[in-house]
Amino acid sequence: MDSFHLHILGAGSALPTKSCNQPSQILSMREKSFMIDCGEGTQRQMRSDNVRISRLNNIFISHLHGDHCFGLIALISSLGMFNRTADLYIHAHPDLKKILSSLIDCFCEGMTYKVVFEPINPFKHELIYEDRSLSVYTIPLKHKMPTCGFLCSEKEKDRHIVREMVDFYKVPIREMQNIKRGADFVTEEGVVISNSRLTTDPTPSKKYAYCSDTIYTESIIPYIEGVDCLYHEATFLHADLIKAKATMHSTALQAATIAQKANVKHLILGHYSARYEDLSPFLTEAKSVFPNTSLAMDGLSFDF
Amino acid sequence: MDSFHLHILGAGSALPTKSCNQPSQILSMREKSFMIDCGEGTQRQMRSDNVRISRLNNIFISHLHGDHCFGLIALISSLGMFNRTADLYIHAHPDLKKILSSLIDCFCEGMTYKVVFEPINPFKHELIYEDRSLSVYTIPLKHKMPTCGFLCSEKEKDRHIVREMVDFYKVPIREMQNIKRGADFVTEEGVVISNSRLTTDPTPSKKYAYCSDTIYTESIIPYIEGVDCLYHEATFLHADLIKAKATMHSTALQAATIAQKANVKHLILGHYSARYEDLSPFLTEAKSVFPNTSLAMDGLSFDF
Repeated sequence: MDSFHLHILGAGSALPTKSCNQPSQILSMREKSFMIDCGEGTQRQMRSDNVRISRLNNIFISHLHGDHCFGLIALISSLGMFNRTADLYIHAHPDLKKILSSLIDCFCEGMTYKVVFEPINPFKHELIYEDRSLSVYTIPLKHKMPTCGFLCSEKEKDRHIVREMVDFYKVPIREMQNIKRGADFVTEEGVVISNSRLTTDPTPSKKYAYCSDTIYTESIIPYIEGVDCLYHEATFLHADLIKAKATMHSTALQAATIAQKANVKHLILGHYSARYEDLSPFLTEAKSVFPNTSLAMDGLSFDF
Repeated sequence: MDSFHLHILGAGSALPTKSCNQPSQILSMREKSFMIDCGEGTQRQMRSDNVRISRLNNIFISHLHGDHCFGLIALISSLGMFNRTADLYIHAHPDLKKILSSLIDCFCEGMTYKVVFEPINPFKHELIYEDRSLSVYTIPLKHKMPTCGFLCSEKEKDRHIVREMVDFYKVPIREMQNIKRGADFVTEEGVVISNSRLTTDPTPSKKYAYCSDTIYTESIIPYIEGVDCLYHEATFLHADLIKAKATMHSTALQAATIAQKANVKHLILGHYSARYEDLSPFLTEAKSVFPNTSLAMDGLSFDF
């Protein structure tokens, strides 16, 4: 089974177009869903794409430009109409708490659940969320305002039991969990059987990195090295590099260069400027440097 | 030529569905466009429907439930990206100014134009806007919070000149404008020619009434009597009358009853609850009382 399911709700940038909504995506893993950014219209896109709203407990906001958070208040308001009771966690720059709290006070009277703000420091690479199967870290980016990406890393998985060996050494079932986690086994006679004889390496843990919005910066490479999937913004084509620099965004070519230097497995481009009607040049440009590139599009999903 | 062009941007209510966005519509008249309500996703719907954003100078907000105003900040922000310079007037309950001003401060740094708040008193029927060709009045409604509808009334038009008569009396061109406005003509010999001999009645002025959200109330009838087109909310079917009353909304049957009692020419229903997948029963129900009924749908236009 694939570890991560990524669903693009909005592949666009500040100005939504007919085909691209403002940024938002859902990363699902087992029964849990995590939202990254929440542009205007996100709740409707979820409904259009049949993404279950009830599984959502954590929302990560990369920065406080409107196109990355305008959809929050409507989403929060709608979740209340479904009589939600579970807390909703919003991980964002501390300034969002004040803005959103006053909107909630105005528009969400008698809300049945609580919105919990978890402040993040976008300038540091640090753990901001973890549960039994997933850790999320910030990735400092370089943009016009404090901005960070997110590294979503599956927790290390159990080692694989070698059935014949555990049978041979008559390992009791109660020991199995420890052995899957790397413990050696001591027989009744006191003989130590090394874990490496009883198990093989676990399935590698999957990693997903989200990097939007940012100017080209190799400073992110150590954080995203070798990830299974990198979403990197590509607001402009390289012919518009001057505009990209002026607005502190990246080009498709630059995103691909980062992907190649960081040795990631798969690159997804997104956050296209509304000025481009035809997005296929983004793919051509990026593939010239990093062949395993895809274009994010609203409603598209990726499994990895 | 038709006087009014009404374009539905969102025919839904609080929870957007696949087919119905949150409430918003554009009333156009000659070269001007007026927005009424602005739910989440309104700017994108405008783009999808090729509604020109640059002609918009006035937005009327019926009340401060989120589904009627969540789209304002994203629209305001986007207008700034187009380097707009003309003032944008928002006619709404005074509380909106505080909410929206702080959002503009947060999200619209260096905006190239000004948002001017024009407070309205939703409890009174009064003139809130006028220009050379249009007057807009509030219509007090009955909802869970202070709410008003809007009566958009074309200014009285010029009388039609009877060409043979003005030729016969040799009316000079410089007098024509006064005569179109009802003045008598005095010949060089001092004979008074009554205006009624020189002109015929003007084309009747068109009137459009927007009534959302409201419980069934006949108190609005005097304000909407005989209008060319009435948009009346129909959040529920009449089988759900108890829910309609509890939430202070109307049913399709009630909207039609108002249309019939107010002797309007055409009724448009909208603001459907997300619970109904099939909207055709709304039409059947309303037509049983008021045959000239249409269903508002996203992207649909009406000329009258």
